[in-house]
Amino acid sequence: MRTYLDCIPCFFRQALEASRVAGAGIQTQRRVLNELAKICSGFSLTSSPPETGRIIYRLVSRITGKKDPYAKIKTESNKMALKLYPRLKRMIARSADPMAVAVRLAIAGNIIDYGVKNSLNVGHELEKILKEEGLRIPEENKKFYQYAKFKRTLAKARTVLYLADNSGEVVFDRILIEEIKKKDPWKHIFYAVKSAPTINDALKKDAKQCGIDKVAEIITSGADAPGTVLSLCTPRFLRMFRGADIVISKGQGNFEVLSLSRRPVFFLFMAKCPVVASHAGCRIGDIILRCGGEYLTREG
Amino acid sequence: MRTYLDCIPCFFRQALEASRVAGAGIQTQRRVLNELAKICSGFSLTSSPPETGRIIYRLVSRITGKKDPYAKIKTESNKMALKLYPRLKRMIARSADPMAVAVRLAIAGNIIDYGVKNSLNVGHELEKILKEEGLRIPEENKKFYQYAKFKRTLAKARTVLYLADNSGEVVFDRILIEEIKKKDPWKHIFYAVKSAPTINDALKKDAKQCGIDKVAEIITSGADAPGTVLSLCTPRFLRMFRGADIVISKGQGNFEVLSLSRRPVFFLFMAKCPVVASHAGCRIGDIILRCGGEYLTREG
Repeated sequence: MRTYLDCIPCFFRQALEASRVAGAGIQTQRRVLNELAKICSGFSLTSSPPETGRIIYRLVSRITGKKDPYAKIKTESNKMALKLYPRLKRMIARSADPMAVAVRLAIAGNIIDYGVKNSLNVGHELEKILKEEGLRIPEENKKFYQYAKFKRTLAKARTVLYLADNSGEVVFDRILIEEIKKKDPWKHIFYAVKSAPTINDALKKDAKQCGIDKVAEIITSGADAPGTVLSLCTPRFLRMFRGADIVISKGQGNFEVLSLSRRPVFFLFMAKCPVVASHAGCRIGDIILRCGGEYLTREG
Repeated sequence: MRTYLDCIPCFFRQALEASRVAGAGIQTQRRVLNELAKICSGFSLTSSPPETGRIIYRLVSRITGKKDPYAKIKTESNKMALKLYPRLKRMIARSADPMAVAVRLAIAGNIIDYGVKNSLNVGHELEKILKEEGLRIPEENKKFYQYAKFKRTLAKARTVLYLADNSGEVVFDRILIEEIKKKDPWKHIFYAVKSAPTINDALKKDAKQCGIDKVAEIITSGADAPGTVLSLCTPRFLRMFRGADIVISKGQGNFEVLSLSRRPVFFLFMAKCPVVASHAGCRIGDIILRCGGEYLTREG
């Protein structure tokens, strides 16, 4: 997905929010916005938003002097999600279709997204979703929810590449991966995190904190953007990306960079921004589980 | 109210939206954003947002070559509101407290605001409000709704200065002015509109199209900003502003520029932006009818 002009005001909003998270004072916040203003006329509209996002979050780091502004938020998201873990496992245990619930929960975890909306309501929003009725897929949302196809492809796969998104959300991914492993302990699952801090995206230590190392092999993609930008990825990751029997991609950022990829990818996310929703042909708030680019609107 | 850093992303959003309303192509829209980026580091944070808004909407006019991008939208808002007029009058007629309903309707009309949100849902939102139950003031909103004080001050006033906000909304103002006149035909009411196009703010011809000239004297303030910025106003208007027995101010823009005014002003608006809501100490969506600056949070 390319960058739209609507992304530009949003870049300013994100830069301001990240500066505040980094603890910058008003003067420094303003400096961040001024520096962004200086460079934004050079942003390419043919790049994906996470490619530009990368430039912005690096700018914030440079000016605020904080290499990982979201470090504390990430650790706390992980802790909060780990506290939910026993409850999530109980939901799976008492379900008639544990895999279906695990997939739905993995997408629910995608609410923990600090690029799109800020922190305060995450706990509250999660709570709403975790009430059983919150897990149902509304009728008008069903066309974006290709669960049967996902299940079929997954059943046949021996190698799984799972692209992580946010910290905290990782616990929800773990629930799904545990379910996959329960069905077939021989599946080889690689869990790919970003290589350097970008917003609240999960790093290796977040994946470990959330216990992914017990169920999958954690790898870094090479990307330090809020989306797995292939041109930034390591040759090893690219081989896996091309060769895996199934690629499970979490979050809007990964969707933004891979939506037009020729290799089929299953995208699991909540549509949280109007531009992404328009690109995906869905509405804000929709629960997405779709394969590849088949449902995309054409880009002008 | 001063300009906050949160206003800067919003200025970009408004500039983009206004360029689209002006019918600009992608290239021109981008040029508007680039030009805005060039000047935004010079924006004073001690000015009010409408003072900066004025610069932005002038920039859009200059680059798109459209002197009044919202002209068509304004005419249509007026027509839409005029169609509602008989229904509004019936609501007043069958009410036990016509003045209370008229005041509530005047604030409901403030939903017609193209600076804050775009057009599509205005009809739908209005429809919701116009269902009788939509006119009730929720319990937690009541502290922002000083109707008794407003009624008392109005009853004693011989001269009324009414500051208009948006086109379309004018019809709702007319309903209130007619009610005021019904109670006291000798009140002298001046209805002040902006002097030149800015967003969808009402001009003299909008006031006439909506029939204000039948119930009040239409004057121009001298301001061509999306708020009655006193430093832009004519000496005649300023005399009226200081001398009127009551000033009724509609909309967020007028609140933003007059919230700290020493002369008491009754502000009637819906809180539609997080920065204004925070300044007023209320929540987004709250219905405001308050006098002067007494309830404001301190500005840092």
